Amino acid sequence: MNITFCCTDAAPEPWLQGLRAALPGADIALWAPGAPPADYAVVWAPPQQFFDEQPQLKAAFNIGAGVDALLKLQLPRQTQIVRLDDAGMSVQMAEFVCHAVIRHFREFDAYEADTRQGKWSFRKPQARADFPVGIMGLGVLGERVARALAHFEFPVKGWSRSPKVVDGVQCFSGTQGFKDFLAASRVLVCLLPLTADTRDVMNRDTLSQLQPGGYVINVARGAHLVDDDLLALLDNGQLAGATLDVFRTEPLPAEHPFWKHPKITVTPHTSARTLRSESIAQIAGKLAALQRGESVAGVVDRGRGY
Amino acid sequence: MNITFCCTDAAPEPWLQGLRAALPGADIALWAPGAPPADYAVVWAPPQQFFDEQPQLKAAFNIGAGVDALLKLQLPRQTQIVRLDDAGMSVQMAEFVCHAVIRHFREFDAYEADTRQGKWSFRKPQARADFPVGIMGLGVLGERVARALAHFEFPVKGWSRSPKVVDGVQCFSGTQGFKDFLAASRVLVCLLPLTADTRDVMNRDTLSQLQPGGYVINVARGAHLVDDDLLALLDNGQLAGATLDVFRTEPLPAEHPFWKHPKITVTPHTSARTLRSESIAQIAGKLAALQRGESVAGVVDRGRGY
Repeated sequence: MNITFCCTDAAPEPWLQGLRAALPGADIALWAPGAPPADYAVVWAPPQQFFDEQPQLKAAFNIGAGVDALLKLQLPRQTQIVRLDDAGMSVQMAEFVCHAVIRHFREFDAYEADTRQGKWSFRKPQARADFPVGIMGLGVLGERVARALAHFEFPVKGWSRSPKVVDGVQCFSGTQGFKDFLAASRVLVCLLPLTADTRDVMNRDTLSQLQPGGYVINVARGAHLVDDDLLALLDNGQLAGATLDVFRTEPLPAEHPFWKHPKITVTPHTSARTLRSESIAQIAGKLAALQRGESVAGVVDRGRGY
Repeated sequence: MNITFCCTDAAPEPWLQGLRAALPGADIALWAPGAPPADYAVVWAPPQQFFDEQPQLKAAFNIGAGVDALLKLQLPRQTQIVRLDDAGMSVQMAEFVCHAVIRHFREFDAYEADTRQGKWSFRKPQARADFPVGIMGLGVLGERVARALAHFEFPVKGWSRSPKVVDGVQCFSGTQGFKDFLAASRVLVCLLPLTADTRDVMNRDTLSQLQPGGYVINVARGAHLVDDDLLALLDNGQLAGATLDVFRTEPLPAEHPFWKHPKITVTPHTSARTLRSESIAQIAGKLAALQRGESVAGVVDRGRGY
């Protein structure tokens, strides 16, 4: 079995070593233009040339949850695209989102500002019932985040394209369900895949439908959010704040107004990092299953886009 | 049934209204010196004069989890002291502690400092296995905090005076167990009652036994911590930081070094506020049980101190 590794943004050596240790029978090499044909690939944002030169690939394992960058390319017809389906990412996502929700709910930023001035302050606790949190996208990550928020007794709402059932979460689906979901949510968490249908999903119209004092947490893709619409709604007071981890251009350009906006917390796409050893273990397990002729989780439906 | 209300720090009117609505048959009045004798009391940090004038009290309901302020007084021998055992406090405590642990684990303060400078930074994720969190005190609050941390897959350790079993938590107890508990913990969360045995429990000797990069979260009482010992260990680098919600003197005096210390986050005793409606419902339920001659949860063992 030949495996080629082509991941921009990841130092190749530790990955190659890890993959070799996990798959002792395989021949694993770093891809370069003109490399010999491989059976399988491990990829992150490869160039078009990569797929042009590897038309025989049986499967390409994406070392991230989102495959939007991959699906922009021309892919060989028979190559299965396989996403990471958890690999330590969902608990990180739960942490990141819970931290942001609690920070906002408990007004820790305001307390911190008071502390910086040496002020011992009292703020009347907000009622948890007035803090429904809506999760858009109920895949592996969305469901894990929903469960974590429910653990803290927040009212949790969920929206997905097709109907889902998640314990402790009021689930909505489809187009009509989306309006009801927005009206039932005060905090909006985006965990959708980026597809033609979900691009720009957080815009002036949809964000205006959130409950008063709305708060936006985007941990999916920058293109889910219309930047200027968010800024307008923060500035006119319809929304109270936002925590943004993903942006249309990354790194976020120096001149972008998000950096200095007093109601926006910017983080550098750090909500859920790909963890190398967990990812390698998952890929090795799926490769073994594929070679036994079994099906694996995380195979992307290219028409649907995730 | 006569109930007297004597709570410093709490606006009496909403409490009196709430108690009257929950206990329509009772005669409920605000205490003042010389007030007529009552059967029961609802108290928070009452003066000694209160108990001197109310020797007939059957029970006094403390509207907080800690009874250290109460046990400093001379109390009528037969008066049962009853603590709040949850009343919405434990979920707040879980939120507060998880927020502090996640903030430290995920280095959100460092990311925020970078963001203020317009810097898009990358920090290697820390391993969760290197972040064992130790909870001192496994009462209602401690156990709830432990469960919340376990939900985020942190290794969770617990210490209590007498042996306890909590799902998903490695429990230690007694004096020998305390050393093992400290050695197994990197983050130390104090949720102990304040008693003669636990005063000054976080001192140079004990805090030095935590794992490297130790972090202290005190959400119990200020007197659990020897302030100067914490400062010395932060300044010599043995400890990485602290989140402190409680202090020997509250409000924290303006000149106290905790306010401006770069490794300390100060919050104004806000980790778990007494929630009025939940507390009133709990007190009303316990009063009804006592009148039926039943025992209730939260009765304080004065000898033990909690």
